[in-house]
Amino acid sequence: MARIVMKFGGTSMAGIERIRNVARRVKEEADAGHEVAVVVSAMSGETDRLVGFCREASPLYDPREYDVVVSSGEQVTSGLLAIVLQAMGCKARSWLGWQLPIGTSDAHASARIGTIDAETLGKAMSGGEVAVIPGFQGVTAEGRVTTLGRGGSDTSAVAIAAAMKADRCDIYTDVDGVYTTDPRIVPRARKLSKVTYEEMLELASVGAKVLQTRSVGLAMKERVRVRVLSSFDDARDEDGHRGTLIVGEDEIEEGSMERQLITGIAHDKNEAKITIVAVPDRPGAVATIFSPLADASINVDMIVQNVAHDTGSTDVTFTVPKAELARALDVLERERPTIGFDRVVHDTAVTKVSVVGVGMRSHAGVAAQMFKSLADRGINILAITTSEIKVSVLIHEDYTELAVRVLHTAYGLEAPEEAPEAVVGAASAT
Amino acid sequence: MARIVMKFGGTSMAGIERIRNVARRVKEEADAGHEVAVVVSAMSGETDRLVGFCREASPLYDPREYDVVVSSGEQVTSGLLAIVLQAMGCKARSWLGWQLPIGTSDAHASARIGTIDAETLGKAMSGGEVAVIPGFQGVTAEGRVTTLGRGGSDTSAVAIAAAMKADRCDIYTDVDGVYTTDPRIVPRARKLSKVTYEEMLELASVGAKVLQTRSVGLAMKERVRVRVLSSFDDARDEDGHRGTLIVGEDEIEEGSMERQLITGIAHDKNEAKITIVAVPDRPGAVATIFSPLADASINVDMIVQNVAHDTGSTDVTFTVPKAELARALDVLERERPTIGFDRVVHDTAVTKVSVVGVGMRSHAGVAAQMFKSLADRGINILAITTSEIKVSVLIHEDYTELAVRVLHTAYGLEAPEEAPEAVVGAASAT
Repeated sequence: MARIVMKFGGTSMAGIERIRNVARRVKEEADAGHEVAVVVSAMSGETDRLVGFCREASPLYDPREYDVVVSSGEQVTSGLLAIVLQAMGCKARSWLGWQLPIGTSDAHASARIGTIDAETLGKAMSGGEVAVIPGFQGVTAEGRVTTLGRGGSDTSAVAIAAAMKADRCDIYTDVDGVYTTDPRIVPRARKLSKVTYEEMLELASVGAKVLQTRSVGLAMKERVRVRVLSSFDDARDEDGHRGTLIVGEDEIEEGSMERQLITGIAHDKNEAKITIVAVPDRPGAVATIFSPLADASINVDMIVQNVAHDTGSTDVTFTVPKAELARALDVLERERPTIGFDRVVHDTAVTKVSVVGVGMRSHAGVAAQMFKSLADRGINILAITTSEIKVSVLIHEDYTELAVRVLHTAYGLEAPEEAPEAVVGAASAT
Repeated sequence: MARIVMKFGGTSMAGIERIRNVARRVKEEADAGHEVAVVVSAMSGETDRLVGFCREASPLYDPREYDVVVSSGEQVTSGLLAIVLQAMGCKARSWLGWQLPIGTSDAHASARIGTIDAETLGKAMSGGEVAVIPGFQGVTAEGRVTTLGRGGSDTSAVAIAAAMKADRCDIYTDVDGVYTTDPRIVPRARKLSKVTYEEMLELASVGAKVLQTRSVGLAMKERVRVRVLSSFDDARDEDGHRGTLIVGEDEIEEGSMERQLITGIAHDKNEAKITIVAVPDRPGAVATIFSPLADASINVDMIVQNVAHDTGSTDVTFTVPKAELARALDVLERERPTIGFDRVVHDTAVTKVSVVGVGMRSHAGVAAQMFKSLADRGINILAITTSEIKVSVLIHEDYTELAVRVLHTAYGLEAPEEAPEAVVGAASAT
């Protein structure tokens, strides 16, 4: 007997027929004797519809009322799933955010989960009743409805799994796991059966949009074993597993196939490059650029400071999310007297490509191999950042697919079925 | 300064543009210095959509989960109205059923309102903030979501008005008041500026579907002054009033134009006639018919027991709602050995036409005048029931419009604008 949290996304909940499919999966776990809590998203499209109403009502809507409106989508699907489960002979009831309660901060529209009353839920679950819980929603100490921000249902599921000390948190979605890279770019991308929290964080934040980043961070902090799998496809690995398990590094055996140097190749087209030309080359100059951007809550990612010109000035290049480019340019223009630069140029035709893997911690040469592979194909690198488990480069967007394919092959990530020699290559790379 | 409850139905809340129209009306009252609570329905069509989901999920849905699903429609509109009011510079917030709370019985899907916490709401309203309250919903003592049954938002509004000792409960709908009869049948039907609770109960329950019957009963019990008016039309009476006020009999002045003998003519096509042929004419025979029907929760309305035949048997005729005809016939067939009748015949091509008015309490001859007027036009009466303030007859449905017109004229109910002599006729009739 295990305690399991299952989470189903919007495409899995879109319409009663699909909810029946979800219910069958839930009932299977309940029939196997497990204690089950299910976290559900709104039907796909519903949250957009409700957000659209709020925006039409007023572009400057009160986030407290926005939360009342948009949280209704998950309320509907949780009631419907409870009905379908009961109709299948499976004891079930819905527990709304305020009923459990799921306590959150009062940062409406992007609240953070504080405490979850594990006692109420534990009693319900140990009584053999499936608890159906709307994701994305919670309640403040003052009793106002909150939501966790888009994609928040993943975070709800992980938080509930942590509070209930669940053995597993299964995130059902419309893909069957986490891949070494985007299969639309590399058809022979390989599904990973295990990936570490740290790798998943890097893969998610740079573009592999399977799980909400916040939920992965929470899972890592709370040591929740998360599994990503498809609600539409029952295919299993050769070792009988479904989906991708996201776990601590200690759970991935030394020397195993999983313990490769590089886990995956991610890419992200949502960055824009800004270059500030001719910044005075003196101490504190860089702070005058980045402090005002930070004050405006603009996330700066890659930063490159060029060698100083003979004129006593230097160029500074960095990236910001495309959505914040206009605001960033405004801030810089306003600060021009303080910073004292010549001019600002920007470029949105860029992509960030990253190689990710915990293996590189104990292995030199990953970055060098990356730069060489790209150079061999004539791909120019505009900026570089590295972390312990990631090397990212900024390139012109036209080279995105080529760069991903080149790196995927270079690190030997191809699926073994069609090209067993690629696995050998991967093994030799570690 | 008055304390006002305003209620807006589904057509008034259908889409953001209409919600803006609602908000303007609310703001007007708030700007006039009144304390305002607004009760809202779901957007028209939304409750049907949600009920449809539940039925598709399972015809035998758990009403507790049904309530979770269908209550979301009003949650959405209450949040949206609060947003629009704020955008117009009017302080406002939504209060969900569980937040106030609006305590109800645990008869899910048709719960009855028990207690409303007037203190919380009173504080909010006296602080100059419009309280936006989703109609139709409440919460049990155990903290489960309930709904009041279709049309329940009217009842929510009246209950809140009673709890808050509001000076007025304004029910905004898509008609501009209560008419002497259906204007689609009698174009010169007159809008009533006042009507008593008792009359409204009879008019509503026999077909003038402006207000939910339960809400009128509650208003009568709690002495809430209810006004029905249009949210789309600002037309006023010659005396400057809008809509129809529903009040106690004592508020309608003796000898005033309002104090007519007959207030209105209603008709109802939702009845079916059942005749049980040849029931043994002995004591207790009637009980054997109506007890099992009552046990099956089938509402029997008009009952006529004919004179006994020479054979020692009698025929019994009565009406039931058309929706319950099949069930009623089943019950009777099952009870045939006990009742001992010959056969059952039924007829759905019937209409109940009623004349309603508190004036008839102190005035004889209303029924006689009704029978004569119908007989003069050759309309056959199939059954009759009377109450203190109502006389109803069952006729063949083909004669519905004719009967309504004949009676509307006979009691002088025509609007005065086009036929002032009709008013004289009405005066002479009292």
